[in-house]
Order: sequence, then structure tokens, then C-alpha cells
Amino acid sequence: MVQYITARLDASFAALSDATRRGVLERLGRSEASITELADTFHMTLTGMKKHVSVLEQAGLVATQKVGRVRTCRLGLRRLEEEAAWVEGHRRLWDARFDALDTVVEELKRKEKADE
Amino acid sequence: MVQYITARLDASFAALSDATRRGVLERLGRSEASITELADTFHMTLTGMKKHVSVLEQAGLVATQKVGRVRTCRLGLRRLEEEAAWVEGHRRLWDARFDALDTVVEELKRKEKADE
Repeated sequence: MVQYITARLDASFAALSDATRRGVLERLGRSEASITELADTFHMTLTGMKKHVSVLEQAGLVATQKVGRVRTCRLGLRRLEEEAAWVEGHRRLWDARFDALDTVVEELKRKEKADE
Repeated sequence: MVQYITARLDASFAALSDATRRGVLERLGRSEASITELADTFHMTLTGMKKHVSVLEQAGLVATQKVGRVRTCRLGLRRLEEEAAWVEGHRRLWDARFDALDTVVEELKRKEKADE
């Protein structure tokens, strides 16, 4: 189970590490679109866009369906819940860590003042 | 400014796309550690760990300081605020999109019932 979530986090964070792929997710958040429309919107070749969509699809962030010659893309079923939880967990650790440093600094200041 | 945030999101999501690097951030959330300690904890070579720390450092997620022969790592100044905002924005889009689909399905069901 943990291994499964780990692999998913690897795939989705990698998928999100490209501005075009993030743009495609934002675009599909408004309405579904064909690969051709996405390629036009992001000024890319069809081949380039197909690669990006494939990365997003493998991460579960996009679902595609081919009818005739047109492949339509829409948001996939993954809501980025685990990703949100990881990022929030890190922010809490970060806050705790820097609060602890603040405490140390405050104590040093107090001791310095007492020594004067 | 937007370009700057875009580059930072690219770098930080790429940094987060590896389980060892996420593990290093969790470890440094508890206390600072040397590269040697991190390599031991994650059963890696020093060279391998140095590469991971370098990726995290370039993304601003880790800061390092070399004193004598020991390089100490601690959490960097980035709190993943933009990353959290992006992930939350996507989740809101996702909810809105699937709520809209729910409405369409409900309307189809109602029409079907009315036609019976």
C-alpha cells in the first residue's frame, strides 16, 4: 500500500514538473479538449502534445478516449489528495522546525541579556 | 514574476518526484544531518546522496553548509507555498468539473424519468 502511494507520488510530482503539463490540467479543468486543440493552444506539435498527455495519463491525472480519429482528453479520476497531504505535511514539519529555531534564538538572546 | 514562479514550480515538483528526496525532507524536518548520516539512513553511496541533496538545494528546499570536511544539511527557506496553492487550485477545478458532470447526469436521469 505504502509502496503503491510512493509510486503514485513519484509519477504525479514528475507529471506536475512541467509548465505545459500543468497548463493542460488547468485547460481541462474548464472543459474537455482534443489532442489537436491542446497542441494548438500550447503552440506545440501533435507529437509533442501526445507525449505530455501520455505522461499525465500514466499518472492518472488525465483520461483519454478515441472516437474515430479524434482523441478527447479530460481530467482523470485522481484529485491529488495524496500530493496535497504530502505538501501540507511538509509545511507543518517546516513550521515546527523553524519555530524550534526561533525558540533557541530567543533563549540565546535572553541569556546574553542576563550576562550583560 | 510569473516566469519565475513557473521555473520554481518546475524545479520543486521535479525535486519531489523521488521517494528518497521526499524522505530526506522528512528527515531534515526532525533535525539537521550531514550528507554521511543521510547516506547511511537511506542506504546509499555518498555520491548518490550528494546528487539528491544537490537537486533539493537547487530547488531551495534544502540548505547546506560545509564546516571542515562535514557538509551539514537542513531545510531550506521554501515552504512549498506556491506548490500547495497550485495543488489546491487544481483540486477546486477538479471538483467544479465533476460537479458539472453530476448536474448533467442528474438532468439526463430526470428527462429519462419524464419520458417514461
